[in-house]
Amino acid sequence: MLIIGELINTSRKLIREAVEKKDGNYIQEIAKKQEEAGATYIDVNCGTFMQTEVETMEWLVENILQATDLPLCIDSPNPLALEAGLKKVKNGKPMINSITGEDERWNTILPLVKKFNSKIIALCIDNTGMPKTQEDRLRIADSLITKLTGEGIALDDIYIDPLIKPISAGQNNGIEVLSAIQKIMESYPGVHTTCGLSNISYSLPARKVLNRLFMVQTMARGMDSYIMDPTNKEMRGALLASQTLLGQDRFSRKFIKAFREGLYE
Amino acid sequence: MLIIGELINTSRKLIREAVEKKDGNYIQEIAKKQEEAGATYIDVNCGTFMQTEVETMEWLVENILQATDLPLCIDSPNPLALEAGLKKVKNGKPMINSITGEDERWNTILPLVKKFNSKIIALCIDNTGMPKTQEDRLRIADSLITKLTGEGIALDDIYIDPLIKPISAGQNNGIEVLSAIQKIMESYPGVHTTCGLSNISYSLPARKVLNRLFMVQTMARGMDSYIMDPTNKEMRGALLASQTLLGQDRFSRKFIKAFREGLYE
Repeated sequence: MLIIGELINTSRKLIREAVEKKDGNYIQEIAKKQEEAGATYIDVNCGTFMQTEVETMEWLVENILQATDLPLCIDSPNPLALEAGLKKVKNGKPMINSITGEDERWNTILPLVKKFNSKIIALCIDNTGMPKTQEDRLRIADSLITKLTGEGIALDDIYIDPLIKPISAGQNNGIEVLSAIQKIMESYPGVHTTCGLSNISYSLPARKVLNRLFMVQTMARGMDSYIMDPTNKEMRGALLASQTLLGQDRFSRKFIKAFREGLYE
Repeated sequence: MLIIGELINTSRKLIREAVEKKDGNYIQEIAKKQEEAGATYIDVNCGTFMQTEVETMEWLVENILQATDLPLCIDSPNPLALEAGLKKVKNGKPMINSITGEDERWNTILPLVKKFNSKIIALCIDNTGMPKTQEDRLRIADSLITKLTGEGIALDDIYIDPLIKPISAGQNNGIEVLSAIQKIMESYPGVHTTCGLSNISYSLPARKVLNRLFMVQTMARGMDSYIMDPTNKEMRGALLASQTLLGQDRFSRKFIKAFREGLYE
C-alpha cells in the first residue's frame, strides 16, 4: 500500500500562508507529521502559485528534504515546475503526478518520467476527454499502460488513477470506478491503481464519511494506493482495519498495534 | 437491501431475562426499535432455551406480531421450533434461517420451506464440512442453488450465506468470502447473499469497526442482505453511506435525510 500524503498543497490555506511567509519550519513539520502517520510518499503541489510555481516548488522540496527521507511525489500539470522539483529530489525513486493520454500532456511529461526514472501517476483522460463508464476507463488505462510499458516504464512504476467523479453528478460514478479498478488490476498483474478520495463526495454532506468508505470500497476491489491525509485518525483507522480484513496485515499486527496506541478510541 | 434485525436472540442477556420473566413488552419494544431503524425482517432465535424452544418461539412470535407488521425470520436448527414459529407468522413472506447442504439438515428443513412458501437462508456447509476457500464456497453454493431451484424455490427467495470465519483464524478468511460473494452474485443473477458480521472479528480488538467495514467491503462486492443490529448508529450510517456510493440511493435522498436527522454527528 502506497500512501501519498497530500497535505503540502498550496490550495490549503496554512500551506499557502507558510509559502508566503517563507515559513520553512511549518512545511517541515507537516512533512514529518505525514511520515509519522504512515505516509510513504510526500506530495508537493504549488499549482496555485502560477507565476512563481518553479521557485516555490524548489523552496518546498528543499524544506521537505530537511525533514524526511521519504521519496516525493511532484505534482503539477506544468512540466517546468515538475522538472524543477525533480532536480532537487534526492530521496529514493520520485513520483510524478500526473501524465494523461492527451497528446500535449503526454509529450511534455513522458520525457521527465524517463529522465528521472520516476514512478508515474497516469490519469484516465485522453484526447476524447474524461471517462464516463468503466469501459471508457478500461480503454484509456489499456492505452496508457501499453504506451508506458512500450517506452520501457515498468508496470510496478505505473499508478493508474481511474478519475473519480462525484456521486452527486451521477449515481453510478462510484460503481463504474469500482468495476474499472478490479478489471485493471486483474488485467495487468503488477500494475497499481491510485486516486484522491474527495471528489467522490463533492456537494454531499458528511463528506469525510463518504471519502473514508469509498477508500474501503476501492480497497475491496483491489486499489493499492491513495493520495490522502494520513494524519486523519478515522481515515488511518479505516485503512488499517481494511488491510487486516483483506489479509494484508500479517497476524493483524499493525491493526492491533494501532488499537493499543488508541487509534480506535 | 434486506436487513434482518438480529436483536431478538436469547443469547443476548436482556432478551433471555425478558423470556424468563415473560416480559412481552420488552420484546415488543425491541421489535419496534428495529423496525424504526430500518430492519425489513425481524430475526427470532431462542436456541439457548433448548428444553422449551418450541413454546418460547411461539411466545416470542406472538409478542413480535403485536408490535410490528414486518415479516419474521425464524431462526433455529431445530425443525420443531421452526415449524412452531412459522405456524404463528402472519406478516408477509416468512424467512427460515437456515438450511445447509448436510443431508439431515436439508431433509428436515426443505419441507418447511415448501410448506410455508418461505424465503430461505442457505448456509455454505455440506456433508464435507465447512468451506475454506472461495472455490469451496462456490461449489457448495452452486449445489444449494441448483437443488433449491430444482425444488421450485425462486432465486429471489434464496439467500446464500457464504459462512464467515474469523480473520484471526486465517488472514485470507475475508478475501475468500469477498471473491465468493461476487462470483455467486454474477453467476446467478437474482439470487441474494447474506451474512452475520460478527464472526469476522472474533478475538480481535475494535470489533465494531471491523464488523462495520466488513459490511462495507462485502457490499462493494455485491452482498445485498445482512443479519445485523440496525439500531447501531455507526453501522446504519455506514450502510446508508455505502448505498449512496454504490448508486443504490437515488439522488442520495436517504443519505441526506439521515444526515439531516443527525446520524453522522
